[in-house]
Amino acid sequence: MNYCSACGARVELRVPDGDNMPRFVCVSCGTIHYQNPRVIVGCIPEHDGKLLLCRRAIQPRLGFWTFPAGFMENGESLESGAARECWEEAQARVDIGSLVAVVTVIHAEQVHVMFRARLAEPGYAAGPESLEVALFAPEDIPWKDIAFRSIDFALRRYLEDRAAGVERLHITHFEAPAGHPAPSS
Amino acid sequence: MNYCSACGARVELRVPDGDNMPRFVCVSCGTIHYQNPRVIVGCIPEHDGKLLLCRRAIQPRLGFWTFPAGFMENGESLESGAARECWEEAQARVDIGSLVAVVTVIHAEQVHVMFRARLAEPGYAAGPESLEVALFAPEDIPWKDIAFRSIDFALRRYLEDRAAGVERLHITHFEAPAGHPAPSS
Repeated sequence: MNYCSACGARVELRVPDGDNMPRFVCVSCGTIHYQNPRVIVGCIPEHDGKLLLCRRAIQPRLGFWTFPAGFMENGESLESGAARECWEEAQARVDIGSLVAVVTVIHAEQVHVMFRARLAEPGYAAGPESLEVALFAPEDIPWKDIAFRSIDFALRRYLEDRAAGVERLHITHFEAPAGHPAPSS
Repeated sequence: MNYCSACGARVELRVPDGDNMPRFVCVSCGTIHYQNPRVIVGCIPEHDGKLLLCRRAIQPRLGFWTFPAGFMENGESLESGAARECWEEAQARVDIGSLVAVVTVIHAEQVHVMFRARLAEPGYAAGPESLEVALFAPEDIPWKDIAFRSIDFALRRYLEDRAAGVERLHITHFEAPAGHPAPSS
């Protein structure tokens, strides 16, 4: 950030009065430009015991597999955002269920909020951000080609819970990259 | 938003190629400036069966009561953010417990993530953003003077669950103001 989005003057990085962290502050109008984590919303759609995954057509992690997920937008709830992403990436209508995982990805400045889901109707297809979309039985999930660490985490917890007949919420955070970069919508 | 924070040129509101929503786009360098919901993190600290609340020293809702909550910062997890806010607003050290409520406040473009908590040591005091801080027995909670609708929601669910001996997660969203404006850190 170099310029004030309100007035166009230069910003400088300093700790505002009464604050304890450096912020971008406009040298002219004084506007403080806070930067905060963004929310990624996603869901794991199940149908006939299989899980719907998408192969990414965009960077980062082009060619790798994920369940539908992307940046939450203003004007929607967590659940409606997760359903929207599923429509955009997998052209699939879903009924959103319980929360399976909430993961803070600290280095990416993101909070990933992932729901259980079921296909509301059997159809699906690759949206513009997907190379292909497919239903996978648990034993066929391409674990070595999963796009992001948080997606791997949520899928594994989902399947463990399903095997145990429970629906738990799993909260964790990742402090640093581990071979899997941060998702992008 | 009037100017590009990257190069200082004017922005215009238009739908970028491949997108389906209007965004602020720089007319010079082409940077797309996405605007997304922010995360509010908070906790309900319990001690000797009482709940720790703060009376706000800042707008909005100056003089009204809340449990400690505020904007999540980059570089922290949900839990560490909730504990930080509790220290800043109530000078209290807490052990963060399970999630009690996740509330999308759509009109405020915020997601409120609230945890159960316990005082890790008995001390507390008003931080700079609080007029006073106090422990309330459930029957003494000032329900008519609660600052925000999401705070009221989380407190009621917390007490209902405590009475029932369970710790559930309550997910909801609010579509429009109902007398309670959105929180601010």
